[in-house]
Amino acid sequence: MEIYMDNSATTLPYDEVCDTVFDAMKRFYANPSSLHNLGKYAEDEMEKARKFIAKMINASAEEIYFTSGGTESDNIAMLGYALKNRKRGNKIITTKAEHPAVLECCKHLESVGFNVVYANLLPSGVVDEGELLNEVDADTILVSVMHVNNETGAVMPIEKIGPAVKAKNPNCAFFSDAVQSFGKIKIDAEKAKLDMLSASAHKIGGPNGIGFIYIRKKTRIESPVFGGGQERGIRSGTHNVAGILGFLKACEIKQKFMQTDREKLREVKNIIEESVKKLPYTRVNSPENGLEYILNVSFTGLKSEVILHVLESNGIFVSSGSACSSRKTHVSHVLDAMGIDKKSAEGAVRFSFSPNNTADDARYVAQVLEREIPVLQKTVNLK
Amino acid sequence: MEIYMDNSATTLPYDEVCDTVFDAMKRFYANPSSLHNLGKYAEDEMEKARKFIAKMINASAEEIYFTSGGTESDNIAMLGYALKNRKRGNKIITTKAEHPAVLECCKHLESVGFNVVYANLLPSGVVDEGELLNEVDADTILVSVMHVNNETGAVMPIEKIGPAVKAKNPNCAFFSDAVQSFGKIKIDAEKAKLDMLSASAHKIGGPNGIGFIYIRKKTRIESPVFGGGQERGIRSGTHNVAGILGFLKACEIKQKFMQTDREKLREVKNIIEESVKKLPYTRVNSPENGLEYILNVSFTGLKSEVILHVLESNGIFVSSGSACSSRKTHVSHVLDAMGIDKKSAEGAVRFSFSPNNTADDARYVAQVLEREIPVLQKTVNLK
Repeated sequence: MEIYMDNSATTLPYDEVCDTVFDAMKRFYANPSSLHNLGKYAEDEMEKARKFIAKMINASAEEIYFTSGGTESDNIAMLGYALKNRKRGNKIITTKAEHPAVLECCKHLESVGFNVVYANLLPSGVVDEGELLNEVDADTILVSVMHVNNETGAVMPIEKIGPAVKAKNPNCAFFSDAVQSFGKIKIDAEKAKLDMLSASAHKIGGPNGIGFIYIRKKTRIESPVFGGGQERGIRSGTHNVAGILGFLKACEIKQKFMQTDREKLREVKNIIEESVKKLPYTRVNSPENGLEYILNVSFTGLKSEVILHVLESNGIFVSSGSACSSRKTHVSHVLDAMGIDKKSAEGAVRFSFSPNNTADDARYVAQVLEREIPVLQKTVNLK
Repeated sequence: MEIYMDNSATTLPYDEVCDTVFDAMKRFYANPSSLHNLGKYAEDEMEKARKFIAKMINASAEEIYFTSGGTESDNIAMLGYALKNRKRGNKIITTKAEHPAVLECCKHLESVGFNVVYANLLPSGVVDEGELLNEVDADTILVSVMHVNNETGAVMPIEKIGPAVKAKNPNCAFFSDAVQSFGKIKIDAEKAKLDMLSASAHKIGGPNGIGFIYIRKKTRIESPVFGGGQERGIRSGTHNVAGILGFLKACEIKQKFMQTDREKLREVKNIIEESVKKLPYTRVNSPENGLEYILNVSFTGLKSEVILHVLESNGIFVSSGSACSSRKTHVSHVLDAMGIDKKSAEGAVRFSFSPNNTADDARYVAQVLEREIPVLQKTVNLK
């Protein structure tokens, strides 16, 4: 029994993705920057991927730049944009829900003199849109709002925020870290008036080590990555063609099954959620209309690690929050920003799904929770 | 007929590497930063790779940090070291032979006020060691010398330069971009008194999108990559475990066949070199004792592109110089720094080998050159 529900950390690649990567390593191994035809073949395949991905977010192929993943894309967006446009203003607005890849860039930008404002979250985990928009002024050069939060699944209303930001300051750029949403829900770069967007393959059944950044035409950006000038100067380094083609394969599958996957996972999520609600001293941290792929719940008074351990001994693999923070154990900054008390935050567990998870899996998880949690609860003082 | 001799741009991965990547994508898909055992399994495998690689360069495992490739490693070394140690001095010394990943970092560092000195090359393509060492002073914080030049195969004497740099200024760090040498010739980080070294998998039959940086213990460095803090803060971003294990497999093979590969390729190189020498209006740009993997020759008066085209029509795939510069067509900065006249530099062709290339392949290439070059030479005025 192995039920993997830590898919927001990373996913098992689709079989078709593994096949594609394997095949591409042998067939399209040449360097797309090489002048000869073997390079050209590899380049042609790569450009097919660029086109497909662009279409998925209603962008054009020239606006897609391949990177080594979400973190690098976030770095290029945040640092590359802020440092290049410094003369135009000194203020950056983001949210308290962002991934460390964005937050740590913000810290760095603060250290070099930028004024970074972190908008609060509503109790739902969604950013306080009014507060955020209120901060947008003539000095603001960049607003960065993640699309879906990696811990709770809260969906930020980027299609409302983007146009509203532009209405207040047409020169302010709008960036969204879409690592947890790309391929899972529809993204429209035009509707959301996005200037930049980041995404990653390994969160949607693609290979590790590959992602992209969308950069709207005419956006002034200076990449923080220096080198041979590949990807039109945005991301130097030899192209990872096999990774790109594996990413394309994952995109094709996600695109095709985007709706059915959501419906399937809504059921999976509901089954576990209902079972948690039946138990005392619990709370559901994910918002009601959050993304179906993530369910964050707290077992108040218990410790996440203990629950994880018990679940694991029953073949269920989940996490306490973000795996991206590389095993730092501290209370989640996201749950904290939602106003969740420490005792509940310390007992938080994140179930994150992929289409591999079935309703039967969920029923099994529910059974285990209903059997094991009361046992654990007896060992502590919950009052 | 397909004879691929553009291996300094990128290599065909070994079959065993493709198998390993495929297998790892399915078995070790979990995030090594996850707390559960699936994460732990992936981490354990990754640590085996770290240990093996460390041993190859006489370092310890804690000194190896996985990155997305050579360019990122070079960026971390150059920017991460220079910016963190600025208070200790303002001078950086490098060579005119470096890869754009180092040179472009140098340009950036100049733009923020560093004094960067570019040591000249001898006619052999090797750096002028005397000139370089003469520049080392109390204000020098970093010396960056590539190990093997990617265009000519010239081997820089890092085992002499490192200790000499330290003798003049023990506080000055020594970095080597070893992207073209790692796995091909023995590297000893201790002997060369290296503080940092960069390497890449795809130049030695490994997968694309994976590399490492060696950073000696206690070296003060602040990574230019911001995020979740993986690789002990040096390279944030979810680990590419499949890539790392593919890299390990390539290392195991290269380590085992390092000497026999060199002997084999010495013959391959010699056959082509001798054939070129027979032709008039040619010169060999690679130094006599250069790495066996690269042969750079000039057909003076002809254009590289024309020769490439003719070779390609005979099934031979080579390049005019570096593919890393993403198709920028200009005269090589390396050949220029060696004092090679423009007319010869414009007719430069780089044959770069892998153990897939046989002596029979080389004899075929020699035949083609001896047949086709005189025909091309008749079409131009060589005087």
